[in-house]
Amino acid sequence: MKATKLMKTSPSVISFAAIGGKKENEGPLGDYFDKINDDPYLSTDSFEKGESQLQKQAVLHALDKAALSPEDIDVLFGGDLLNQCVGTTYGVRAFEMPFLGIYGACSTMAEGLLLASLFVDNDLAKKAMAVTSSHFCTAERQYRFPLNYGGQRTPTSQWTATASGSLVVAPSDKPPYIRGCTIGKIVDLGVSDANNMGAAMAPAAFSTISTFFTDTGMTPSDFDYIVTGDLGKVGSRILCELFERENINIRDNHKDCGMMLYDFDEQDIHAGGSGCGCAGSVLCGYFLPKLRAGEIKNILFAATGALMSPTVNQQGESIPSISHLVWLSGEKDMKGAN
Amino acid sequence: MKATKLMKTSPSVISFAAIGGKKENEGPLGDYFDKINDDPYLSTDSFEKGESQLQKQAVLHALDKAALSPEDIDVLFGGDLLNQCVGTTYGVRAFEMPFLGIYGACSTMAEGLLLASLFVDNDLAKKAMAVTSSHFCTAERQYRFPLNYGGQRTPTSQWTATASGSLVVAPSDKPPYIRGCTIGKIVDLGVSDANNMGAAMAPAAFSTISTFFTDTGMTPSDFDYIVTGDLGKVGSRILCELFERENINIRDNHKDCGMMLYDFDEQDIHAGGSGCGCAGSVLCGYFLPKLRAGEIKNILFAATGALMSPTVNQQGESIPSISHLVWLSGEKDMKGAN
Repeated sequence: MKATKLMKTSPSVISFAAIGGKKENEGPLGDYFDKINDDPYLSTDSFEKGESQLQKQAVLHALDKAALSPEDIDVLFGGDLLNQCVGTTYGVRAFEMPFLGIYGACSTMAEGLLLASLFVDNDLAKKAMAVTSSHFCTAERQYRFPLNYGGQRTPTSQWTATASGSLVVAPSDKPPYIRGCTIGKIVDLGVSDANNMGAAMAPAAFSTISTFFTDTGMTPSDFDYIVTGDLGKVGSRILCELFERENINIRDNHKDCGMMLYDFDEQDIHAGGSGCGCAGSVLCGYFLPKLRAGEIKNILFAATGALMSPTVNQQGESIPSISHLVWLSGEKDMKGAN
Repeated sequence: MKATKLMKTSPSVISFAAIGGKKENEGPLGDYFDKINDDPYLSTDSFEKGESQLQKQAVLHALDKAALSPEDIDVLFGGDLLNQCVGTTYGVRAFEMPFLGIYGACSTMAEGLLLASLFVDNDLAKKAMAVTSSHFCTAERQYRFPLNYGGQRTPTSQWTATASGSLVVAPSDKPPYIRGCTIGKIVDLGVSDANNMGAAMAPAAFSTISTFFTDTGMTPSDFDYIVTGDLGKVGSRILCELFERENINIRDNHKDCGMMLYDFDEQDIHAGGSGCGCAGSVLCGYFLPKLRAGEIKNILFAATGALMSPTVNQQGESIPSISHLVWLSGEKDMKGAN
């Protein structure tokens, strides 16, 4: 069976919300956030509790914008980068929604959107939700060094976004419509540098996007944008080169959320943004509104995740990566799909 | 929409495998494992890599027993207790199956089976797989103390199983059939003692099992066993009492995998077994074969998970828990269900 599933009913993303932090507000997409938190603690007493607040805000905003309450949601898919996904579980516990925890590292928003779409398309849920987040301060101390240590960052390292995205999928006659999705495979080409996630993840994006093109017969020119999650400068260059080797040009319409979120000249972010909240907030804050408004017609959203942990990386392991893909469109039907 | 989904086609669990360690072999279920590993490193150089081997073995045994190869699998759902679920990602990366990572702590086998069943029932996969694991040595050093420290364990603490379970769901005319499932909600009644997970998780099991009874109109007497994952002595007592308050007796047919896996008198396990691999291996090693053989006709499998991390627990947070449920049967249709 093909890893690409085309939707039978093309459900819509009926609501979406993006939450950010101070640095995200200062970047080029600052105006696209629904809410900005200048305080990295979000009025709690720890960064981890702060990250949970990001998810809580994202869910509440997405519900509010569609005049929904938590009881209207049949299933919520959520996850994040924190050990045991506590950003999510503590962020959403008060909502008492049926909940399925997912873990795809920075591909989590694509995995959640994919599962929410399949649930609604097969009438397993009338309204399904997805949420994810990341937080610079929680990620630094969990994956790298305590902030107080003031460690140097390598040129290939990326900046974890303090951000969250959330969305609601349901049947509707308003775009954006979900037209299809591709479930990714784990790809590991042996990159073991945890400060160069982009290089580790690019082959996974290549694998999944290629599978989508093969399964559907569509080509890059069928899309306004081919959006990756957080490959950053290094990973994006590798992805475009991998496609060029196959004589496929995605350079003209490739966008990477990690390269859009911050200003490279002004914000000292090295190779770009990263984290579950990077792809999540750029999808929910920037791309989904433009699809709804008709400013763009078709995108592939292929977020990528590096499925390692500091423990096994320190034991010398390379970094297995994955990418899940969702095809979002302004139209319910479009020529080119089979 | 109800949180309980009844299957339209009642797919089967066509293959299953249980892998264990030395202590699991010495317990009352020792003979039910497909493979035992006396070496806690499983011939690797770290406990974490050893845990990945547990999952690899479980997947390979489940495939072999049905004469399947990895290419036959349309989607694999997997997760475990390790930070970033690396037991799974490193265990299954070589198989190159479409993969969706899940996180439900010790409820992971129920979540994976639930998703695999829904995917097959809705023709999103012809063959879907689920896998999970836990390992005493990786869990101790990640959640509690380094083994070398020789810390004392409290009377309510549980023993993390060194075990893995894996299964394949597909359409078939051979039992066990999956008849339905209930997606759980996060429940947090304020228990914050990380050495008393059973007490934290029992209310989640109560919530999900009650929801199933309400949604279907079925009662405990419709089932040979109501199986929980790893509530242990303390959590099992609380679960039975919570039902008794509602005038429902589950005491006569309640079984807890955490109370079945080890010998309380001989094996010094305090309140019982725990870990994703506990429910996973007891389901795949003990209950599924008995359902296939017709020795038992109907069970509810309701694994529970504690969705905390040491970090937030040390910050004073209580323990949110969840339970997902799957109804397994020797018959495709049965009176009593609506």
